[in-house]
Amino acid sequence: MSVEIESHAECKASIHAIEDAIYVIGGKWKLRIIVALRDSPMRFNEIQRMVSGISAKVLSNELKELEMNGLVNRKVYDDTPVKVVYSVTEYSKSLNNVLETLVEWGKMHREHIKTED
Amino acid sequence: MSVEIESHAECKASIHAIEDAIYVIGGKWKLRIIVALRDSPMRFNEIQRMVSGISAKVLSNELKELEMNGLVNRKVYDDTPVKVVYSVTEYSKSLNNVLETLVEWGKMHREHIKTED
Repeated sequence: MSVEIESHAECKASIHAIEDAIYVIGGKWKLRIIVALRDSPMRFNEIQRMVSGISAKVLSNELKELEMNGLVNRKVYDDTPVKVVYSVTEYSKSLNNVLETLVEWGKMHREHIKTED
Repeated sequence: MSVEIESHAECKASIHAIEDAIYVIGGKWKLRIIVALRDSPMRFNEIQRMVSGISAKVLSNELKELEMNGLVNRKVYDDTPVKVVYSVTEYSKSLNNVLETLVEWGKMHREHIKTED
């Protein structure tokens, strides 16, 4: 780990950064929403179908928080009826490394647990 | 993202892997416990002091789940009174890359949010 604790201050900064990250992208849904939207921009109902199990209320909250953190963009088209489309922002690509390591670890861990049984 | 969706099956496997990872190390406390224990093995009360804000009940559950997933080791020393010491396992080092990318992203995101305000 390149963040190997060299000083107490550094250690605390690292823990703080992990907490920040967990706060912003942690929980059950946020990364799933981002992964779904990477494919293509979508309307609310489409996202809800892709992210199976999420309620409209929770999805609405999650989208607001993701928007607040600059990860998701909400665009209103002035059609009749009004059309609202969500997409991932350019900034959300900053999560690429995090997603990649999580995918790798999740796959590896599944195999690890299998061989333990 | 090297896991860039080449096929639908691959895409679903990646999402599944991310969900696995979030299930095992997600939430508010697990990574903080692991980061604390990386420093040195500790007794229950010491962990609780290090991971500020966690209740004894929640810490006890988190430790059990981490143990079940091979990330934390619980050792009972037959002293009087009995001494129980927790440590990270060799296997927990598999999380190094995940922790590293989370630290990096958390630090970067804090700066990003600052400059947005």
